[in-house]
Amino acid sequence: MKIALVVGTVVASHKEPNLEGSRLLILKNVTIEGQTQTEYVVAVDAVGAGPGEYVLYAGGSSARQTAATINRPVDAVVMAIVDSWEVGGVEKYRKE
Amino acid sequence: MKIALVVGTVVASHKEPNLEGSRLLILKNVTIEGQTQTEYVVAVDAVGAGPGEYVLYAGGSSARQTAATINRPVDAVVMAIVDSWEVGGVEKYRKE
Amino acid sequence: MKIALVVGTVVASHKEPNLEGSRLLILKNVTIEGQTQTEYVVAVDAVGAGPGEYVLYAGGSSARQTAATINRPVDAVVMAIVDSWEVGGVEKYRKE
Amino acid sequence: MKIALVVGTVVASHKEPNLEGSRLLILKNVTIEGQTQTEYVVAVDAVGAGPGEYVLYAGGSSARQTAATINRPVDAVVMAIVDSWEVGGVEKYRKE
Amino acid sequence: MKIALVVGTVVASHKEPNLEGSRLLILKNVTIEGQTQTEYVVAVDAVGAGPGEYVLYAGGSSARQTAATINRPVDAVVMAIVDSWEVGGVEKYRKE
Repeated sequence: MKIALVVGTVVASHKEPNLEGSRLLILKNVTIEGQTQTEYVVAVDAVGAGPGEYVLYAGGSSARQTAATINRPVDAVVMAIVDSWEVGGVEKYRKE
Repeated sequence: MKIALVVGTVVASHKEPNLEGSRLLILKNVTIEGQTQTEYVVAVDAVGAGPGEYVLYAGGSSARQTAATINRPVDAVVMAIVDSWEVGGVEKYRKE
Repeated sequence: MKIALVVGTVVASHKEPNLEGSRLLILKNVTIEGQTQTEYVVAVDAVGAGPGEYVLYAGGSSARQTAATINRPVDAVVMAIVDSWEVGGVEKYRKE
Repeated sequence: MKIALVVGTVVASHKEPNLEGSRLLILKNVTIEGQTQTEYVVAVDAVGAGPGEYVLYAGGSSARQTAATINRPVDAVVMAIVDSWEVGGVEKYRKE
Repeated sequence: MKIALVVGTVVASHKEPNLEGSRLLILKNVTIEGQTQTEYVVAVDAVGAGPGEYVLYAGGSSARQTAATINRPVDAVVMAIVDSWEVGGVEKYRKE
């Protein structure tokens, strides 16, 4: 998994029928120091995440292992909202 | 998933039997600012997308989770046509 | 999928039993402008492709979705021979 | 698989229900010479690894082939703690 | 698949129970001209390969399609020892 920041959303009314109701989030990867990168991914939201939140996302077939994504043509899912992380004993982020 | 622009098509008459009837689109990745990149992928069309449209595509085993691609040797599928997307509250693209 | 040029072959007599009879092709990726790149992949041939032909290959678990590769430890398969492709209405390649 | 160094942990209280109890480790890839790289991944711990230990992790669907991760939206798992490795007959690392 | 050179081994006594008995090889990717690269991967040996041999390895879920790796948390497997390969009609390597 990677840590990412939710920065936006995608609207797509014409899509595979089994994608109806999926919320599509734009995520930007962040380094473990907390710096936002230009690389992005579009992921289905499985946990009610919103813009400005740090999240974990999983890719590949593992992205289909949630109630929101099972058997759907989805290769990235937000499956956790990050409270905090630390590296080398130093807290790099804590949700306020 | 990634946002991409449909820029072309591939014709392949000699192929795996279960690929008959699949429409093969050439997609160029776009940044979330809407800039077209040189990186491309060939994807099967599952939603009737055409050249000039912005789409979402999924890769890996998730590309086989549509009616058009199930059980086929296909590792990328266009599964949505993008209406619009926004980043940081600013609309970056809207389909006319 | 990616477009690639068949440039060579690999011989491996000592291998997993279920790989017996698989033909191993060396492919070089090509850009959508038709330029051959240094990046390569070794793929199992599922369609009778040969050196000098432009092909499509699929990767990951999708590479096992052909009669030639099912249930085998194979992560890339040539599943189509390309007749032609076009980008922006301009033909970039046509097989002679 | 890749060799990585456990450098930190992620806390995420709001997540997919089937992720309850999963320990989330931050790993930094290391070269085979033992140099730590900036590239990182968040992986679920399946073997009781902790900060400062060198581990092996597996990605993709293979990350779900442990008791700790089966059927979960997890794309990376720590499935071994490294005792030592050698390259060209020279030991590059040995756990003390 | 990729062609790689076996350059070393990893020892890991504390691991997922179903990895007992797996031999862990360190592989360095090689170009199709036969040049060894710095990029490496740790793969399970399914064919009795050893240091100094050129091999083929498969990644992702395909790495689990051998007797040595089925249902195991393994994302790379050595499934063939290379005898020779040629590019453009020129032999680039032949095992002595």
